[in-house]
Amino acid sequence: MILHLQNSLSKEQTAELALRHQAVFYSNAEHLIFVLPSAVKTVPEELKPFTEASWATDSDIQLASKAYRPDVREVRWGNTVIGGNTNATVMIAGPCSVESEEQLEVTAMLLQELQITNMRAGAFKPRTSPYSFQGMGEDGLKLLAKMREKYGFSIVTEVRDATNVEAIIEYADVIQIGAKSMYDHGILRRCGKANKPVLLKRGFGSTLQEFVQCAEFILSGGNEQVMLCERGIRTFETKTRFTLDLCGVSYLKQYTNLPVVLDPSHAMGYAYGVADLSRACVAMGIDGLLVETHPDPRVAKSDASQQLDHNEFRALMQTLNPIAHAVGRRMI
Amino acid sequence: MILHLQNSLSKEQTAELALRHQAVFYSNAEHLIFVLPSAVKTVPEELKPFTEASWATDSDIQLASKAYRPDVREVRWGNTVIGGNTNATVMIAGPCSVESEEQLEVTAMLLQELQITNMRAGAFKPRTSPYSFQGMGEDGLKLLAKMREKYGFSIVTEVRDATNVEAIIEYADVIQIGAKSMYDHGILRRCGKANKPVLLKRGFGSTLQEFVQCAEFILSGGNEQVMLCERGIRTFETKTRFTLDLCGVSYLKQYTNLPVVLDPSHAMGYAYGVADLSRACVAMGIDGLLVETHPDPRVAKSDASQQLDHNEFRALMQTLNPIAHAVGRRMI
Amino acid sequence: MILHLQNSLSKEQTAELALRHQAVFYSNAEHLIFVLPSAVKTVPEELKPFTEASWATDSDIQLASKAYRPDVREVRWGNTVIGGNTNATVMIAGPCSVESEEQLEVTAMLLQELQITNMRAGAFKPRTSPYSFQGMGEDGLKLLAKMREKYGFSIVTEVRDATNVEAIIEYADVIQIGAKSMYDHGILRRCGKANKPVLLKRGFGSTLQEFVQCAEFILSGGNEQVMLCERGIRTFETKTRFTLDLCGVSYLKQYTNLPVVLDPSHAMGYAYGVADLSRACVAMGIDGLLVETHPDPRVAKSDASQQLDHNEFRALMQTLNPIAHAVGRRMI
Amino acid sequence: MILHLQNSLSKEQTAELALRHQAVFYSNAEHLIFVLPSAVKTVPEELKPFTEASWATDSDIQLASKAYRPDVREVRWGNTVIGGNTNATVMIAGPCSVESEEQLEVTAMLLQELQITNMRAGAFKPRTSPYSFQGMGEDGLKLLAKMREKYGFSIVTEVRDATNVEAIIEYADVIQIGAKSMYDHGILRRCGKANKPVLLKRGFGSTLQEFVQCAEFILSGGNEQVMLCERGIRTFETKTRFTLDLCGVSYLKQYTNLPVVLDPSHAMGYAYGVADLSRACVAMGIDGLLVETHPDPRVAKSDASQQLDHNEFRALMQTLNPIAHAVGRRMI
Repeated sequence: MILHLQNSLSKEQTAELALRHQAVFYSNAEHLIFVLPSAVKTVPEELKPFTEASWATDSDIQLASKAYRPDVREVRWGNTVIGGNTNATVMIAGPCSVESEEQLEVTAMLLQELQITNMRAGAFKPRTSPYSFQGMGEDGLKLLAKMREKYGFSIVTEVRDATNVEAIIEYADVIQIGAKSMYDHGILRRCGKANKPVLLKRGFGSTLQEFVQCAEFILSGGNEQVMLCERGIRTFETKTRFTLDLCGVSYLKQYTNLPVVLDPSHAMGYAYGVADLSRACVAMGIDGLLVETHPDPRVAKSDASQQLDHNEFRALMQTLNPIAHAVGRRMI
Repeated sequence: MILHLQNSLSKEQTAELALRHQAVFYSNAEHLIFVLPSAVKTVPEELKPFTEASWATDSDIQLASKAYRPDVREVRWGNTVIGGNTNATVMIAGPCSVESEEQLEVTAMLLQELQITNMRAGAFKPRTSPYSFQGMGEDGLKLLAKMREKYGFSIVTEVRDATNVEAIIEYADVIQIGAKSMYDHGILRRCGKANKPVLLKRGFGSTLQEFVQCAEFILSGGNEQVMLCERGIRTFETKTRFTLDLCGVSYLKQYTNLPVVLDPSHAMGYAYGVADLSRACVAMGIDGLLVETHPDPRVAKSDASQQLDHNEFRALMQTLNPIAHAVGRRMI
Repeated sequence: MILHLQNSLSKEQTAELALRHQAVFYSNAEHLIFVLPSAVKTVPEELKPFTEASWATDSDIQLASKAYRPDVREVRWGNTVIGGNTNATVMIAGPCSVESEEQLEVTAMLLQELQITNMRAGAFKPRTSPYSFQGMGEDGLKLLAKMREKYGFSIVTEVRDATNVEAIIEYADVIQIGAKSMYDHGILRRCGKANKPVLLKRGFGSTLQEFVQCAEFILSGGNEQVMLCERGIRTFETKTRFTLDLCGVSYLKQYTNLPVVLDPSHAMGYAYGVADLSRACVAMGIDGLLVETHPDPRVAKSDASQQLDHNEFRALMQTLNPIAHAVGRRMI
Repeated sequence: MILHLQNSLSKEQTAELALRHQAVFYSNAEHLIFVLPSAVKTVPEELKPFTEASWATDSDIQLASKAYRPDVREVRWGNTVIGGNTNATVMIAGPCSVESEEQLEVTAMLLQELQITNMRAGAFKPRTSPYSFQGMGEDGLKLLAKMREKYGFSIVTEVRDATNVEAIIEYADVIQIGAKSMYDHGILRRCGKANKPVLLKRGFGSTLQEFVQCAEFILSGGNEQVMLCERGIRTFETKTRFTLDLCGVSYLKQYTNLPVVLDPSHAMGYAYGVADLSRACVAMGIDGLLVETHPDPRVAKSDASQQLDHNEFRALMQTLNPIAHAVGRRMI
């Protein structure tokens, strides 16, 4: 159960009450917010005098629920506004990994040409093998920061684990939590205290309930700027790398108040399907799209098979706008 | 390996050669077609004198492969043409089950209003419980035939098992093989000898390879009019009934020559997501769409939760045309 | 809800009452049995005068439920008794497919040597490709019948679809319904009227609920001799062919009254794991085990990778008895 | 490819050679060990002079492969030896979470009574909801340390994320990496430098290949004491919490050199199946078993449904020894 309490309570009172009622709490500009276990369905007697508003929820999807906030949250960074009433679908594009300054420069040219202002690329890569490329680390983050300075891009980049979360918070405009790190409490708890937007990817073996509950860790830590990213789940089918769960996206749009971003590149795993899937995503009226593109995918140090080359990416972009318009939105 | 042989061979010669080379064979207007196991990569010496053309394939996806026929097959029935160069996306709509003449009449009005000419409804239902509604059986087929006569619709209806395949072949314009019957050899083999188009649904626990190989049973029986229908696969996610596999659809479009039809209703299992998913499907440039709609879903005898009511269906149709146009197609 | 009614009702009365109460019904030696939808929780007023006993159930697992019969049913054929209080674990062994009389003879020698009296082998194979070996058909059944006559074995063999169910009922001692045919209503309904035991395999994409409900089709048709066979489900893991669901077996033992047979060969897909898994199965205290063994697996026409050769099979049998004893059972 | 190099190379030479050949390296008492990407199949010319032995592998399962070490590694801590030629199956038991000193004391009595010397319990819990019990944290670790001191137990406890890995390394005898943290590079890399054994649990959405490759991160960091723990994977089946993958265990035993421990409690999710599954595990000849038991499961703060009460646990232990003996092992 969510309670909006008067902001007038002292720190000690707050802590005491929270402890007694097993509440997680934080404050924003307007309220002191208590979140009690969802099993609680009525405002406890002791808290009534301080309570200005309350919401009971079915499950531990609480702060992220439409029951709490019927409209999609607006999330902002740099010049980008996503969600809310913007009717915008934000394209976030770039290579899988930062590989060199030259690679990022060529990518920057492409984005500028297509008026895309959000660049993605990973510096700390959560690879599954210790014997393959592990990312450029902090050097990669510095190259990304250079692109921001030079071209005015916003940077979306991934935290790998709790040992590099501070570096990502420092360098990124949007903190991306990858699928393999979705449950990482070290990251989730720290991001709850960060003042930057978080793009949380769904673990490929995780249910929608678990996914949104991981967002609850960040939200209940006090960071209200969270976006959900579906990127394919693991199923028995092996002809494609993962299975993009658009049924799940319908669920997220229906029951949660968080902007939804889709990543067709990782879902498909093969460049040939990325354009078709991107079109499907845009037709669903989603808030953002994450697409991998590389100057020369054949030599990419990671995810070589699924990155579009720049011509393929240009061709894709041309087809997305008409679909966005057909569903009352526009690509930005 | 596929061989086109001269049509001049005698029946006895054909049978002898087929036996010796483990070939499945059939004839169409132009050729005698032999399909040898895919492990065979070169034309056997003995068959060379009769062979006019040959195709080696990677796997037992042979007649359905782009390697054999690079373009999508055209499939025709009634006034409908699907696949090929038609750039049409065919809407096939109607209730889950035939329940009464009145129900079909109300549905017929809706389809007529929206200029939809393909009606779907099941008469033999492969229910998972023996204690729920099992369908109207042959009485249901007769009601469907009445609608065809009265309104000029084509009828798409499902065969449940080999004991009712003859009835379906008699009454239907398109024989639908349901997900639970995908592997049914009694149905597949009989449909290979039928002269009506077949809409083969993917089993929800079946790989794409198995799915297309089941189409191969029909194709290699001599029926060249086969369509593939993705309708959701079973995954660990339980918030939605199944998971629509659009990555798999990309694969089918890339590697097979069969028209692809999508069924978002069964995938989602809930009416609220059907419109969004239908839009996604159309944006992928698919050949057909199967959507369940019922005059009053609350009282439907099967699949009550996922059928659109008629107003929801009307609203959906209005949004599909602009998307179809955006990808160079039109809804019919 | 299950009702035991007096056997005194006339045919017409029975049919009328069943129709009015949406009941499936059959008679056994003692009772007329009505099964109403599980939503019904109290005996309908009209049926009370005829009702001798009644059981409400949670779901449409009714006749198969422990709520109805707390003990495991005893199923009998030839000299075999399974389930009940027998504390026997029945070994059913033989090749995947009947390939020749010689092959069956060599297998018969092995079974005789090891005092195994149940032989398995398939004659109608539900293959996934039309271009591979499809089984010997009725010729295969005749060879199996010959083995029964000559060696006194009972024969367990698979029905492929409704077009060969009569042949299987005629030749087999136990009718095996394969995983791909689990939902086949043509088979299930016909087996409900057969007077031979049925071994129903779980579809690899089917839930336990669906699995047991398919058994309900047979039971409610009047055939009370049904066994459940877990043979591996399809998961994301691809190093093994399927995943043997022993958690599911615990569920079946806890909640159903049907004997449980396990098939580790199909689950594993590789001979190297079959012995270990067979030992695990026996330690769970199950009622039967289905293991594939072939005189020379390297040349087997189907499932070559997973069949044990005869020496491996002999070695396996030696290790199973001590485990069976450790859990209070014996191998037969 | 794995190379054993002479220990005589200088630090600078080693680093230079490793960089040039993309090798991960570490030293143990006998060798300097280089691991090159598995694509390398022959010893590079430059490294030949220093190479004493080499092993090419099929995939990036290298140090963990039977190709490298045909026998199962022996792992030791406290009085426990696991793997190797010990023929022991180690029981590790205790509650899901540390809840109080009293709870641990009662558990300690049980373990002492049954001569079990390895106690498990979690202090940092990676819960899926922020609104439920999160574990006692470092206070919990101190209580576990107290039990070790008082009763001589070894302590197996879980690291949640990279922010508490130091605390776990300090307090635990065996560092458990939980299913949700399997991919956590912060943990894996730190554990590679720790001198304590690691019990790595398989992520429930992770393939066997990914699972063993995570072990490779630890092994290639220089910690040779790694055990693999299968604890159930996520499938479409929902009657049980997860599906214990014993086919996968066969694979691990066949292809890897790491001891295998099984956790039937988390796989099943319900106490009723834990005993049956434990017996199945022991019959497979595995190296260890992790079972949850709680003085009063009804009031447990986490995993209440799956913990055995102490009487159920006693009863289980009595049945395991005979099965262990039947497969040539003994429980310790």
